[in-house]
Amino acid sequence: MGFDGRARVIIEGVQPSVDGGAFPAKRVEGDDVAVEADIFADGHDLISAVLLHRHASEKTPVETRMRALVNDRWRAEFRVETLGCYLFTVEAWIDHFLTWHRDLQKRAAADYDVQLLIGLEMVRAAAARAKGRDRARLEHYVSVIEGSDDAADKVHAVRSDELLDLMWRNGERRFVARLPCEFTIEVDRRKAAFSTWYELFPRSFGTFSGVEAQLPRIAKMGFDVLYLPPIHPIGKTFRKGRNNSVAATESDAGSPWAIAGHKDIHESLGTMSDFKRLVAAAKEHGIEIALDVAFQTAPDHPYVREHPEWFLERPDGSVQYAENPPKKYQDIYPFHFESGAWKELWEELRDVFRFWIDKGVRIFRVDNPHTKPLPFWRWTLHELKREYPDLIFLAEAFTRPKIMHWLAKAGFTQSYTYFAWRNTKYELTEYFKEISKPPVSDFFRPNAWPNTPDILTEYLQYGGRPAFVIRLMLAATLSANYGIYGPAFERFVNAAREPGSEEYLDSEKYEIKNWGDADDDLTELIAVVNRVRRENPALQQNVTLRFHETTNDEIVCYSKAHGDNVVLAVVNVDPHNPQSGWIELDLNALNLDANRPFQVHELLSGARYTWHGPRNYVQLNPQVVPAHIFRIRRKVRTERDFEYFL
Amino acid sequence: MGFDGRARVIIEGVQPSVDGGAFPAKRVEGDDVAVEADIFADGHDLISAVLLHRHASEKTPVETRMRALVNDRWRAEFRVETLGCYLFTVEAWIDHFLTWHRDLQKRAAADYDVQLLIGLEMVRAAAARAKGRDRARLEHYVSVIEGSDDAADKVHAVRSDELLDLMWRNGERRFVARLPCEFTIEVDRRKAAFSTWYELFPRSFGTFSGVEAQLPRIAKMGFDVLYLPPIHPIGKTFRKGRNNSVAATESDAGSPWAIAGHKDIHESLGTMSDFKRLVAAAKEHGIEIALDVAFQTAPDHPYVREHPEWFLERPDGSVQYAENPPKKYQDIYPFHFESGAWKELWEELRDVFRFWIDKGVRIFRVDNPHTKPLPFWRWTLHELKREYPDLIFLAEAFTRPKIMHWLAKAGFTQSYTYFAWRNTKYELTEYFKEISKPPVSDFFRPNAWPNTPDILTEYLQYGGRPAFVIRLMLAATLSANYGIYGPAFERFVNAAREPGSEEYLDSEKYEIKNWGDADDDLTELIAVVNRVRRENPALQQNVTLRFHETTNDEIVCYSKAHGDNVVLAVVNVDPHNPQSGWIELDLNALNLDANRPFQVHELLSGARYTWHGPRNYVQLNPQVVPAHIFRIRRKVRTERDFEYFL
Repeated sequence: MGFDGRARVIIEGVQPSVDGGAFPAKRVEGDDVAVEADIFADGHDLISAVLLHRHASEKTPVETRMRALVNDRWRAEFRVETLGCYLFTVEAWIDHFLTWHRDLQKRAAADYDVQLLIGLEMVRAAAARAKGRDRARLEHYVSVIEGSDDAADKVHAVRSDELLDLMWRNGERRFVARLPCEFTIEVDRRKAAFSTWYELFPRSFGTFSGVEAQLPRIAKMGFDVLYLPPIHPIGKTFRKGRNNSVAATESDAGSPWAIAGHKDIHESLGTMSDFKRLVAAAKEHGIEIALDVAFQTAPDHPYVREHPEWFLERPDGSVQYAENPPKKYQDIYPFHFESGAWKELWEELRDVFRFWIDKGVRIFRVDNPHTKPLPFWRWTLHELKREYPDLIFLAEAFTRPKIMHWLAKAGFTQSYTYFAWRNTKYELTEYFKEISKPPVSDFFRPNAWPNTPDILTEYLQYGGRPAFVIRLMLAATLSANYGIYGPAFERFVNAAREPGSEEYLDSEKYEIKNWGDADDDLTELIAVVNRVRRENPALQQNVTLRFHETTNDEIVCYSKAHGDNVVLAVVNVDPHNPQSGWIELDLNALNLDANRPFQVHELLSGARYTWHGPRNYVQLNPQVVPAHIFRIRRKVRTERDFEYFL
Repeated sequence: MGFDGRARVIIEGVQPSVDGGAFPAKRVEGDDVAVEADIFADGHDLISAVLLHRHASEKTPVETRMRALVNDRWRAEFRVETLGCYLFTVEAWIDHFLTWHRDLQKRAAADYDVQLLIGLEMVRAAAARAKGRDRARLEHYVSVIEGSDDAADKVHAVRSDELLDLMWRNGERRFVARLPCEFTIEVDRRKAAFSTWYELFPRSFGTFSGVEAQLPRIAKMGFDVLYLPPIHPIGKTFRKGRNNSVAATESDAGSPWAIAGHKDIHESLGTMSDFKRLVAAAKEHGIEIALDVAFQTAPDHPYVREHPEWFLERPDGSVQYAENPPKKYQDIYPFHFESGAWKELWEELRDVFRFWIDKGVRIFRVDNPHTKPLPFWRWTLHELKREYPDLIFLAEAFTRPKIMHWLAKAGFTQSYTYFAWRNTKYELTEYFKEISKPPVSDFFRPNAWPNTPDILTEYLQYGGRPAFVIRLMLAATLSANYGIYGPAFERFVNAAREPGSEEYLDSEKYEIKNWGDADDDLTELIAVVNRVRRENPALQQNVTLRFHETTNDEIVCYSKAHGDNVVLAVVNVDPHNPQSGWIELDLNALNLDANRPFQVHELLSGARYTWHGPRNYVQLNPQVVPAHIFRIRRKVRTERDFEYFL
């Protein structure tokens, strides 16, 4: 028995925890972390429990008393203000003083004498441990119990809340049960949870200066992250031509993902100082530059010459290129992660991030992380975030769900999702229910993209303009993080390379586009939607997402709430036809009184309606506007009905 | 990097596991344990995985290849034949040969030469490792690849299943990922999962010989465990009188739970050799004797004299008696588990079990385990089961759910449940759904009791004879383990001490009863129900329990299946009125074809009906018989319809 069998309290079922504490749970600065645990012991004795938390940089934990909820569940909260990791654990013990104090109130007077003696021992011991005023007050209680008053009077005196407080601070904690480990909360900056991304190919705007010229337009639309596909030199060996053709001509620009130098800049885009100027200019517009990190090389990448050990040599002496038989990608060499030199390779790849961090970049979109060893990401992201806790990594892993989840657990800050292929009410409801709630939401932060340079969905191809508007509204309100690939998105570009393909015709991945100006695009609506997101904290998180019933399967209705800020979205997901129906609000979930009218304030149009009760009628014409984004305003005063809404 | 980053496979989400492996999952001998895990890696390479299991007494694990299900879930099974603990773990690795083999079939002929060279390296290395016939066959494949045949012919030759098998056995496993720990399966004997208990107070039958005289009747009813409340000397100090009155008279027998010697036998019951004879006689009737272990003492227990350090002394020198203020139980002293001598106390209490084990007892019903430290049970049960893996412990913890669950996790074989208070269709459905499925069913084995000497429910008090029949049917079919307290149960004893109390009037706990003979009781029906349980493996487990819809809220319908043995129970839970309605069977769950009739064979009456499709009408009069127990017989031949049922 190498343990103290007198530690009688059991602590288990700790939340938040990801895989029993194997991975950190994610939060952002300023969040209140509610920690819960099952805490119980034998018999009828009362338990006291504390939550102990500390930032990883601190040694001494802060103690917060936990309170019992129902069914042996306990809770306490702590606020996370500093980036990086917090550690928490729980301690609990049988609180004999508290038990004695509770029982004293139920006892017969005949028991007072012996019970006061029992209490006296505990109070006296606490007085001996206490300091200052606490000690004086505890000694006062000792003298009361020892005094000549009537036993009933003494009992009355010790029933005070003051004595309970004094004993909480100074009473002995014996046989304390502890969790076997600390649990981790990883705290990112707020942008990890709420961000609005715009992707463009810089070369289509000439140089970094051309991109700078786009910043006012992008800022006006309300984006705060500008993500650039790889800005590096592009390999010439086996370069792909337009529409991914195998044979490139001399004039073909090649794919930016055929990288011929991870620490270099494509000569036509500008110099490193041009890049730094772009980063600075973006910052002045409230925009951060996000870089693409794609760990693969063109055959003419310097690594191939300098580190042949990082690539797999085939028995015929050739280097193994990327393939998915019978498909071959001879313009791309994957790294050989089973190389004997894997450690050096890992370190070099980590240092690619460091290189760009040094140039002022703090956000990275990682290309196909699921085709590099998963343990590599866990190590790399941990290494980097330890140094730079403000880093944000977006995982572009469109793969099977468990791998996507694991990458998020391993440290990716945000993740691309299946959103692009979730179009019906059923699909959207099931998917967002899954990813917006614990356990998934504790580690997986969705970033919803209606389109990307790789993904032009059938829905967008055949849904016309309304399809773009619908997908924008859904992405922007279902997911606190979302992004679009522009100007293709706001210009409604929807021609596919061939039927059944999700590739763009004349894809910008393989050629330089000249976007010029447009008479008509989605710019203004995007600006409004993004303003609504900025002004409504409800839309800056996902965990309160709740779907409401509707009588029409083409109409999706859902709400998000953050304190008093409650937003209700109603979207017609049919891009072809007007749809109408009844929505059935869960008034309890919205904290609305069924007997009072409430106001819904349409934030796109500014219109206000008064609704009563759960059942309300909506009609949405996709050719006009396929969605309502309502702010629900509860009536807070009754003197002049319908006038004062929160 | 104190690890090999080339072990690219992730293994997680292992089942069965209780609290991530902190506790064993429970099975019984002969069970097939299906182990599942999420197994995945980066990229498109194929994975191989093995389940490794061993009995704790063995060093070398047995390897079973796992197969992929869907969504990165893998499975393999192993059978547990030996009592005690089995340990299992999972290993997985990137299988380069398998990947190569799969890809080879998709490649263009132009790639054959280099691919054959790649394969050759792997086959040659395997041949060097292999022995005997495997070596010869692998060398054959080496010579084929090295030979002068056409490349296409070589590719054809290496596509053989034989080579895949040879490479599975002899191929190199590099960079193997392992789970960080072994998971435990605790294997009990079959009675742990399927047992039928009868409780009686031996003193009401005079002596152990009187109990022996009851054995034929109990065996005829089909019980296989006879549980005796404490058989020890009863304390005289503060002895309780009839109906738990504080003042006992000279003639009062006292409560058997006021124990004055845990290793002694009450003098009026007989001697130790009488007890051993009872154990042997019961065995001849197919019945095991279960003893009650209640860790508390009467004030005149020898421990109080010999080990005052095991009891709490109050400041006035008196010993702390049991209390729940303002209630006092001065006839009972609890052990002081926070004593400095806790280790000696734990060892002595463990030895109480050992003492009776030595007398031939293997089943213990533990009284109020939730009022003794929970870690004590974990240690004690583990210690005892290591020596005697055939022990069965039934936890009498009627307390909050998390404590009941924890006791089961800590090692109790079976647990009393809330069954006695689950009367309505909703209550029964919700409760048995919860406890019959993983994760709960992996550690918690319900033992359902319609009554106990402490529990005469309102339902039994006011429901008349039908209430007893209904509760018997439910207990016997919902729970593979069940028991009754008799003869009170089969004689329909239902008078409470006072309204609102669940105590019996003139409770047998405080006085000796003379049960005599009865003209009319439930004996025959109990015998039939228990025979049905013995003859139908479906009723000997809970995990396949499934509830079916009914149109009447007073009618509960559920099935259990074990292979071809499918039992369907339909119970009217209203003891006062006949009820009728439609049941809506989930034919898929029952593996029935919607287009074919099937036979339902009523096992209580022997009647047979032919049903078609999911919807069938039932009518149940509680005064006649409130339940049907059907065996579903699928038609297996079609030549002569309606005649051949399985």
